[in-house]
Parts: sequence; structure tokens; C-alpha cells
Amino acid sequence: MTMKWWGWGEEGRTFPVPNPERFWGLVASRLGEPGVSPRIESLDAIALPPSRLEGETLAALRRAVGEDAVATDTAQRAVYSLGKGYRDAVRIRRGEVPHPTDAVVWPQTEEEVAAVLAEAARRGVAVIPFGGGTSVVGGVEPATDRPTITLHLQQLARVLNVDPISATATIEAGILGPALETQLNAQGFTLGHFPQSFQFSSLGGWIATRSGGQKSTLYGKIEERVQSLRLAFPGGAIATREVPAAAAGPDLNQLIIGSEGILGVITQATMRLAPVPQRTELRGYLFPAFPAGVEAAREMMQRELTPSVLRLSDEPETAINLVFRSAPHGLAAVIEKAGGWYLTRRGVSLDSASLLILGFEGEEAAVRSQWQRAKPILRRWGGISVGKSPGRAWERSRYEAPYLRDVLLDHGILADTLETATTWDRYLALHAAVRDAVATALGDRSLVMAHLSHSYPHGGSIYFTFLARQEEGQEIQQWERAKNAACQTIIDSGAALSHHHGIGSDHRPWMAAYLGPGGARAMAALKQAFDPQDIMNPGKLTPMEEPTPRA
Amino acid sequence: MTMKWWGWGEEGRTFPVPNPERFWGLVASRLGEPGVSPRIESLDAIALPPSRLEGETLAALRRAVGEDAVATDTAQRAVYSLGKGYRDAVRIRRGEVPHPTDAVVWPQTEEEVAAVLAEAARRGVAVIPFGGGTSVVGGVEPATDRPTITLHLQQLARVLNVDPISATATIEAGILGPALETQLNAQGFTLGHFPQSFQFSSLGGWIATRSGGQKSTLYGKIEERVQSLRLAFPGGAIATREVPAAAAGPDLNQLIIGSEGILGVITQATMRLAPVPQRTELRGYLFPAFPAGVEAAREMMQRELTPSVLRLSDEPETAINLVFRSAPHGLAAVIEKAGGWYLTRRGVSLDSASLLILGFEGEEAAVRSQWQRAKPILRRWGGISVGKSPGRAWERSRYEAPYLRDVLLDHGILADTLETATTWDRYLALHAAVRDAVATALGDRSLVMAHLSHSYPHGGSIYFTFLARQEEGQEIQQWERAKNAACQTIIDSGAALSHHHGIGSDHRPWMAAYLGPGGARAMAALKQAFDPQDIMNPGKLTPMEEPTPRA
Repeated sequence: MTMKWWGWGEEGRTFPVPNPERFWGLVASRLGEPGVSPRIESLDAIALPPSRLEGETLAALRRAVGEDAVATDTAQRAVYSLGKGYRDAVRIRRGEVPHPTDAVVWPQTEEEVAAVLAEAARRGVAVIPFGGGTSVVGGVEPATDRPTITLHLQQLARVLNVDPISATATIEAGILGPALETQLNAQGFTLGHFPQSFQFSSLGGWIATRSGGQKSTLYGKIEERVQSLRLAFPGGAIATREVPAAAAGPDLNQLIIGSEGILGVITQATMRLAPVPQRTELRGYLFPAFPAGVEAAREMMQRELTPSVLRLSDEPETAINLVFRSAPHGLAAVIEKAGGWYLTRRGVSLDSASLLILGFEGEEAAVRSQWQRAKPILRRWGGISVGKSPGRAWERSRYEAPYLRDVLLDHGILADTLETATTWDRYLALHAAVRDAVATALGDRSLVMAHLSHSYPHGGSIYFTFLARQEEGQEIQQWERAKNAACQTIIDSGAALSHHHGIGSDHRPWMAAYLGPGGARAMAALKQAFDPQDIMNPGKLTPMEEPTPRA
Repeated sequence: MTMKWWGWGEEGRTFPVPNPERFWGLVASRLGEPGVSPRIESLDAIALPPSRLEGETLAALRRAVGEDAVATDTAQRAVYSLGKGYRDAVRIRRGEVPHPTDAVVWPQTEEEVAAVLAEAARRGVAVIPFGGGTSVVGGVEPATDRPTITLHLQQLARVLNVDPISATATIEAGILGPALETQLNAQGFTLGHFPQSFQFSSLGGWIATRSGGQKSTLYGKIEERVQSLRLAFPGGAIATREVPAAAAGPDLNQLIIGSEGILGVITQATMRLAPVPQRTELRGYLFPAFPAGVEAAREMMQRELTPSVLRLSDEPETAINLVFRSAPHGLAAVIEKAGGWYLTRRGVSLDSASLLILGFEGEEAAVRSQWQRAKPILRRWGGISVGKSPGRAWERSRYEAPYLRDVLLDHGILADTLETATTWDRYLALHAAVRDAVATALGDRSLVMAHLSHSYPHGGSIYFTFLARQEEGQEIQQWERAKNAACQTIIDSGAALSHHHGIGSDHRPWMAAYLGPGGARAMAALKQAFDPQDIMNPGKLTPMEEPTPRA
């Protein structure tokens, strides 16, 4: 499915604010009166410099992939030159595409991918692999002065083989989430990978960015589900062995997973599947405060429970959730029913509560056993059950939040997210530090909230959402202030520069500090080995300072 | 603990053959009459060429680590120049140390490790990191014409920090299994890593070789338990971030795990811990044949059961087990009690049965729930419970098997093991192919048996044991025939060249085929980045053919 050119998601679809008066009232009181932020009416309003590809190069590309599979028109070039981050949205709404790609090509096969890379290498043309284009970290925007082609993998989208004995499937990289899950489900399997971008993002993109999904606490991030893969790089290819585990040197899969297109193009992968769960059961719990919920999460994970969903909102996010949800389906209704007086008696105030959506899935007996073991832990940390509605509400709307970003933008409101992960001992301190850093960067009239969405026995992720009235004429600088403050705090805290969004160009300035000189040297060596001409997605992922020269 | 110089394990300890007459009778009938294979009486019988290190180099090393921490005497050089594989045993018993190291050094700190590497780099001296020295694949034997030092990490053996909140511990690489577990257990934690070499092997060695343990089906191989690590390489160091997961490029931990000393020296790691299990429960089951047991294992793993021990012997190994075990503690007694007639009625013949040792561990409730779910699966595939004794017998003797190798050697019997892993769809075919290849290489009077010891939802390991009467004067060539046949079969089948022993020098001839040119290029790039002079454990792990030159 192709997304609307000017924002997130399906054309004609928007975020239905469930309780508009209350919602916009809250926005006004917290962030200031919303405004109006116009956008250009169509792609025709965008002017681009002409494609820098020489006629000979274009002819060679057309020979490689076919006449119809190369586009150089402005509309296509504009759409494929930006991702779906906040900065991308601001710019496309203004009609600004400052770094346009010079052509979009659609190879049909792995051989055609190799042919395109060979032409690009021969002619020194940069190549940006493009799956669903949902990067929120500048992963698909050209970042080089060289002529650039965007290699769209849309046509490599087949499930090549499902092996029901080994519970694996070999799948082409360009397939999007829904097509993939539908085909696997038909054979009784799931990949269990549901990032918020699920409907529009591709398997290859997930692998290239070390994606995480909403059920990764059970199924593992994408790096745990790759059994083997194939990477085409300029001048060669690599195919890793299809084995469940090995002791035969460094794990080459883990070199390529997360490489964000800088080494080559992931063309297919054999993925580890799980059975479609017999039963999925989500329940909501309210904790007296975020730290109590974090302790409950930690204890569940360390006592080896395996929830599929463990999503704990901090107090501000919980409060916003209560405003968002409309009666009679939403959390507000549930709370109404539960009775504020009851919660108060149990030490939970709705102004400072922390909402947990907890889910287990799998075979009936396993799910039952997990709930039996989880409940005493939840109780011990003060968790109060608020029934199944919050889980249902979350499930219904779990792919919807990005649409809201565009609604807010229409009203002159900055809204974006960022995420990290750290060990449990540093968790609450990092949560507070990033929240405070972003709030300071955005000023008093801002809102910063967060949730824990991916838990491990040894730590967890933190996913921040931040909102502020846009500073007119300074929209991007304002956003950069918040991002910079967050990234610097994350680096200073020793946390993950990203847990599942990736690095792209947005987080690149911190990569040298994140990796250190030794890590930078490893990354430079890989880049040099696979792409010595630096034609593969240049300007992304790699540290910006040169690694320390050899002693 | 230091091992005996001429074989496996503690000085003065041997394998008490429980049923000697029956056992040696079987050996004679299957392999031919045992002989006598003498060994030299002491290390004094070994003559080595003088150390090739120049006086200046030795002086520099002594300045770096202290006068007493550098040894160049023949006895030390001999002991530290071989691992514990079959070929090593044959040679040390003859007094043959064809490739002696030139000095053994014992740094006390990470800084001293760096100082030794700096001296080595300056002088072009090769360095072999040495943990417990239990490599069975030639991992610690010098394999270069250059002067070589063996860097013994014995003195870097502290648990630096246990973080009870994050359930992690930061530990120096030279610590051996028992010291590590004792210290973690005291704080309520376990690393859950119990390779057969547990008593004598080191954390750093486990990480460097991608080790697997007897409970890795639950706890994961060592690569799953490393949160972060530190590697000293010539001219620098790398310290990975202590995060539970990240999306910030290739996983640098997974570059270093399995690097077998060719990139640098792993000096410490922060490891992911688990709680000491409340309950551990092992039971034995007999299946009518190996394939039925494999199906039961596959179904349990794919239905997301999490056994800690799942050890399934094929028919020949089961038969040998029955001979080994002495009444009244062993399996034989159990079977006696169960009554052959009962088994026969249920379709199990003792001549062709397959024994499963299955264990679950963790919290009481979780263990109970797992057994409840496992039992119908075991029944469906024809598994018959033979109670708890087989599990107890296995637990008691689980570190003993390597002692038997030496007993057999004393009697002129070749005994060795090798292992691999593959996906479930290829499992039985690979089992048969390797078994047949090794049996053909060794001739009629040989015994090849195997077990499944590490299971995953998507495949499993196969661990082969092979025995034959030694061919006098051709002991090593005979062994090489068997190894070559097995390795070639494994490569041809697309299976793991090793699942947990590693590559060392023994498996190196197959690495080019295993990795393919793209993989070889990645490995060469890493080597070049960290160790351009090739002083780190030269002659190990890396493919022997040069990778294809760049197009």
C-alpha cells in the first residue's frame, strides 16, 4: 500500500480524535492555542532541479531493470526522497525537497538488484535501498552530492518458501507487513513482528534497521528472528548459512542486521516463525505511579514470564490516554465504572497513575499458567486490574498514533517520538533525565510523556512522545533542539542511541561517541570491505568523525 | 584448577568404568581386542627447541607484567602449546610438541594485557590468548613460524560487580566455571552455562568460541548471555555498550563473540544472569527409535516449551549407555525394574530404543506447568517414562566423559567427538550422513553414535562420538580421515561447521566453503581492522583461501 505523499498512512484516512472538545481544550491549556499550519495542495507545487543522472547512466539502468522500472519525474523523485519523520513532514508540507534523489528504480529480481549495483559502482552513483520508506530517522533521504538512485524493493515481495518442519520461511525483502502475515497465517504461522509502521514497512527495512515490534517482548526484535539472509553488495553477494546456531566465527547475520543500507541491499531472508497463538489475552492494570509499574515489569521479566505485550505508560501518558479515550469503549469508561473512589482507596490517584497493558499469548494452558504467576507480582507492586477494555482499546488503535501527528501538525503542533533502552538499574534515572532535557529544550508549554514497551530480564526500552506549539519559522530548529538534548542525554547515560528506530542521518552525529574509536574502526572496516566507493546509502549510520588512525 | 599435563582433568582422577567386564567385552567385540598405548612418564621427557624470543623482547615482556609472570622453561612451554583434543592427547602422550610457544605470560590487569599486545605488535611477535586451554579444535596451539607468546588470563579472574537490579555481572575473562558459578550463586544468580569443560574452561574462552552448555536449550548459548564486553587489540580497545538491545548498526558484541583470539583479547564482559532455579526436575524417557524422539523434541520446542536439558541419544548411544551404567544406580537397573516385557509391549526394544533425558527448571509453578504440557507430547511420540534415575545418573557423570577418552587411549582405542547443528527438516538426513561418513572412514570395526543436546524451535545440534581401534603408527591420520569425512559431509549439507566447539585450526580448511566469498571478505576486513600485522592467534578461524579479490 502506498502512503499519502504529505504525511502518514492511507490516503483519505485520518485520526478520529475521540473526544475533540476535551482534547483540544487540553492542548490549548498545556501548549497554547492551536493554530493552522497549511500544506501545499499537490506534488505539482514542488519544483526540483533536473535529475543529475547522465543519459548513458539512465539508459544502462533501463537496460538493467526495464524501461518502465525507472522513474525520473518530479512527483516520484519528491515522494521517495523523504521518510516519515517530523522533519520530513514539515518539509513535504511546505513543498521543500532539498536533497532529491535523481531516479527511482524498481528491480524485479535479485539479479536485477545486482545489475543496478554494478552499474552504480561503475558510474560512481549512490544507491539508497528503499523498502516501505517509513524511516523516522532520515534513513532514505539522499545525503551526498553525488547523483543518487533510490532502489525500491517493492517488486521483490514474494514468500518463496514456508518450511513447516523447521518453522521457517524464506521471504523476499520488499514484502510489507500485512502481505507477509497473511501468507504466514494461512499456514498456521506468524513472524510476530508488529512495528507501529507494520502496514507500510517492509521485511528488508525491518532487518536493515534492527526493528522492534509491539510484541517483541515475546517474539524478540527482528535480529532474533533472522535465521539467514542474502545481501547484494557492489561487486558481490553474501548468503549466510541457514542454521539455528553456530560456533564458526563472528555472526555474519548480526553484521548485516542493522546495516541500514550502507553495506548493500538485503534481498531476502529466512525467518524464524512461531505458531499463530491459540489465545491472546490483554488486561489493563493501574499502578499508583510509574516506578511501581517498572518494578512489576522487571520482576515479571526476571522471573522468566514471557508477556507478548508489556506496555507501561508513565503518569503524563496515562493522563493523556484518559483524555483520548471516548466513552463507552475506552479507558475513561472503564475507570468511570471502576469508580474513582475505589482507586483512591487503593492508593491510586488518576492524576498520577501509571497504566499497564499486559498481554500473554500462546497455548491456552501456557497463557493460564503465566497469568497465575503474574497476578501476585502485579498485586505486590500495587497494580489494580481495570479489566480487558484498555487492552482492546490499545489493540484497535495500535497503528493509529502516527495519523495523529499529522492532525496536530495541521494545527501547528509539533509532535514526535524518540526512544532508547537501558539496564534496569539506570531505567528511572534515564527516564527522568531525557524527559527533563526535552522539556527544557521545548520550554514550559510542552508535554513530554513516555512508556516502557520492550522489556528484557536485564533492562527495557523507553519510548518518549513530545509535543509543543510550533515556533513559526523555526519549526525544524525547535525540533532539533529537543532531539539534540535527548540524544546527548542518552549518550551521556550510556544508554542505547536507539532501541528500534535506527540511526539514519538524524542520530549520526552521536555515533562516534556511541561506538567509541574501536567500534568505529570495526564499522569502517566493514564499510570498506563491502563498499569501498561509498556508494551505498552514503551519509547514514557511520560515525561522522573519522576513526582514530591506526597506531 | 590446573589439568593433568597428559590428558583431561584433575591429576589423579580417572573414569571409573562401572561395569568393566561387560564394557571391555563390548569394546573387544565391536572394535577388536584392546591394546596398550604407553605414554611418556613426565614432562622431562619432552625436548623443545630453545625459545625464539630475543633477550630484548623477553626483557620488555618482564617489564610489562613482572619478572615472575613470564615463563620460558620447557615444561610450561610444552603444556601451554597444546589443547585437549584427540590429536593433542596422542601427541603429548608421545612427548611430541611440534609447535611450541616461546613464552607464557600472565598479565594481572587489562593494562598489562594492553602492554603485552603493544610489545608484541612492536616486535612482530604472535600472541595466543589462553583461558582454560580446553580447546578440542586446535585453538591454542601455535600455528605460525613467528616467535609466539601464550597470554594466560588466569590472573584476570575477578567478579568485578554483580548488579542485582539489572541481573547482570561484570566479570574478568580468565575466571573458570566453578569460581564464577559459586560467586554468582551466593547472590542468588546463575549464568546457566555448563559446557562439559565447565570445571576447567574460562568465561573468556566461552565467549571467544561461542560456547554452548548442557543447559543452553534454556539459558541460550554464551552469545545470548553477553550484555557487553571489552576487547583489547593491538593498538586499541573496544568496549561495547551495556544495553539490553539496540538499533544502532551491526551488533559489535556478535563480531567479537566467536572471534577465537584472532582480533584481540577479551578481557572482561558483563553477563546476563538468571535466578538460581527453585526447582530442577529431570526425567528419562525411552522412545521406540531416534526419529520419534526427534519429533517429540521438535514439537516441544515449537510449542514454546523451554526445557533446560533435552538430551536425546540415538539407538547406538542408548545401547552403550545401558552397558555403561552399573546396577543399582544406573539406567540398566531402571530398565530391569521397568521390565523388558513392558517396554516390548509398548513397542520399545532395548536394541533400538532412544533415551531422552528431559529437564525443566525454574519456579515450582512454571516447572509444573511445563511438565503438564510436555507429557502428552512425549506420549504421542511413543515416549515411555523410565523415571528419575537416568537423569540423576546423567547429572552425576556429566563432566566425566572426557576422562574416559584417556582410559580408552591407554588401551589403544581412538575416541573423539564432533558436533554440528541444522534445521529440523534436514536433521535426520544429516545425522545419517555424518554417521555413515565417519563409519566408512573408520571401517567396520568402529562405533559411531550421537545425541541431540541443544534444541531450538527451528533446529537442533547433533553431537557425535566415534570409537575405533587405533591404527598403530597412523593414529593421527586415522583420526583425520574421520574428521575430514565428517566436515565435508557437514559442509555439503549446509549445516553448521561447528555448533559449540569452534573452528580453531582443525576446522579451518572448511571455512572458505562455509562462509563463501562474501563472508570471507567480512572476516578479512575485521582482521585487517583490528590486527593488520596478523599477530593475534595467527593460523586460526580465518578461511585459508584468500577471499576473492574485489571486482
